[in-house]
Amino acid sequence: MDARGIPVVVMGLGEIGRAIARAVIARPDLELVGAVDSGASLAGRPLGELLGVPAPALKIAADPKAAFAAAKGGVLLLATASTLDAVRPDLERAVRAGLSVVSTCEELAYPWLRHEEAADALDALCEQRNVAVLGTGANPGFVLDRLAAVLGHATGPVRHVRGLRVVDASKRRAALLRKIGAGLDEDAFHEAAERGEVGHVGLAESAALAATGLGLGVDEVDEELAPLVAEEDARGGPVPVRRGQVAGFTQVARVFAEEREVVRLELTIAVDADDPRDEVELDADPPLRLVVPGGIPGDAATAAAVVNAAAAVTELRGLVTVLDLPAGR
Amino acid sequence: MDARGIPVVVMGLGEIGRAIARAVIARPDLELVGAVDSGASLAGRPLGELLGVPAPALKIAADPKAAFAAAKGGVLLLATASTLDAVRPDLERAVRAGLSVVSTCEELAYPWLRHEEAADALDALCEQRNVAVLGTGANPGFVLDRLAAVLGHATGPVRHVRGLRVVDASKRRAALLRKIGAGLDEDAFHEAAERGEVGHVGLAESAALAATGLGLGVDEVDEELAPLVAEEDARGGPVPVRRGQVAGFTQVARVFAEEREVVRLELTIAVDADDPRDEVELDADPPLRLVVPGGIPGDAATAAAVVNAAAAVTELRGLVTVLDLPAGR
Repeated sequence: MDARGIPVVVMGLGEIGRAIARAVIARPDLELVGAVDSGASLAGRPLGELLGVPAPALKIAADPKAAFAAAKGGVLLLATASTLDAVRPDLERAVRAGLSVVSTCEELAYPWLRHEEAADALDALCEQRNVAVLGTGANPGFVLDRLAAVLGHATGPVRHVRGLRVVDASKRRAALLRKIGAGLDEDAFHEAAERGEVGHVGLAESAALAATGLGLGVDEVDEELAPLVAEEDARGGPVPVRRGQVAGFTQVARVFAEEREVVRLELTIAVDADDPRDEVELDADPPLRLVVPGGIPGDAATAAAVVNAAAAVTELRGLVTVLDLPAGR
Repeated sequence: MDARGIPVVVMGLGEIGRAIARAVIARPDLELVGAVDSGASLAGRPLGELLGVPAPALKIAADPKAAFAAAKGGVLLLATASTLDAVRPDLERAVRAGLSVVSTCEELAYPWLRHEEAADALDALCEQRNVAVLGTGANPGFVLDRLAAVLGHATGPVRHVRGLRVVDASKRRAALLRKIGAGLDEDAFHEAAERGEVGHVGLAESAALAATGLGLGVDEVDEELAPLVAEEDARGGPVPVRRGQVAGFTQVARVFAEEREVVRLELTIAVDADDPRDEVELDADPPLRLVVPGGIPGDAATAAAVVNAAAAVTELRGLVTVLDLPAGR
């Protein structure tokens, strides 16, 4: 790292991208040299105006070309989309420009699961350009996968992993409430699920990561999504939910190896969900269980996980996962 | 790793060393090629007889020379003593023989704290011989330091770390009960503390590790030890503890940086201690708290942490800490 810090570009200035940009500005070891968003309403605006904090004198660019050139040898922090197909052109462009990348893209947390060929190609491109690409966040990337893998260092061989995350959506932003189907009737929920409009992207990736991190195989991964119906009118929240309407969902991802279940992750996100928390339980010798009362706040922890990985990713090579990150900062 | 696995020597065949040896035998990626203990009662005995499980046909050696030669390029798992001075000759001998080392030695978890010069010399020797040396276990090495550092990946800058470990000593082995002063009167406890016979080695090391792993400074570390007096006769345990006698202790280690406390770790080990558990709490944005109900079992987790680090340490160079270990196995 030179005296000015690792050069960083932030791309995608939605809620999480803005939190990432603010955190980068606050870190002495990172230097924000570019801010990119393709949205017509943002391009050309001063970054500081958007962030509401003192910021470098940068204008938001619609095209990343100049920012990538300014950050060669540094890192792109990419917070635009959930699917690998959607972020792949930007990943490749950044890697070709000589930047490592840390992204919130959920599928990128374990891209071999759904996109083995594309992942292998991206890995080869990273090696060729001597940079690394990493997908992380709170979920996937931390709560139900990385923490589980780390916990496994204190046990013998792991027979089964159970992960549970319960999120009370009442205090979350409206975008999340749309993704959980709050206020829909059950039929509309199932239709929205068919169209891929409700549900959480990344739970299966977390399950595969946890299995890999704990030395378990990944022969097969399945996923199920079921609506949770409100038993009474919701106490609050930005979207009204009446008794009988959908308050959210429970999603389950399972990994099978050698014809038995080795990982089961259960994610509940609902308005007024009881006892929000994160739990990881390892069936092993000794058995271990870890609880985060209240649960790790998704958006803030995602921004932190991305920024905390920025320096570490410059020390790695290839398409990597959170399992490759060291424990220390 | 070749088809036979990484060659491993286990040295120190007390309770934990035997658990380490059993775990090595059970792992397909490790191959136990030597077992060493300087105790006169063990030397020459068949290892399998001591372990009570099917084991390679090895006799326990008093001198490590032949075992080190057989394991060149592999790993020594060393479970003999708590202080760096005590393990240093064996560490150096192993490193000179071309072995990496993972040890339960508590001071080795963060040897720069009490032995900066010796640590630097050991680091240089490791680099010269192209191997790595690591100290780990449950405490220090996992519960109050590594887990804290990992948790910090999901938050912004950390202002303060609080760690708490409460161990009910009733079900622990007699050696631990002697170390906690169970059954002594208060005066005898303080005298034993003066002689270094009671108390836990490694809490200050954990505190310094946690600070380092979370990007906090380590200007000063202090430690305090206070007896806990039984308010009623103990319900059970291998040593009788009557009302008014010492049931155990509370030990506190603190790290200061820029003239304020940045880490406070509190360890209580006592017969019939209430609500045994581990807790880590980070004062940060977002604030995060993690609980292990019941607490991580010390001996079993120490053996597991050592064995789980065996393969990873062969990928590292120099005198390293658990903060350098990746999340995945």
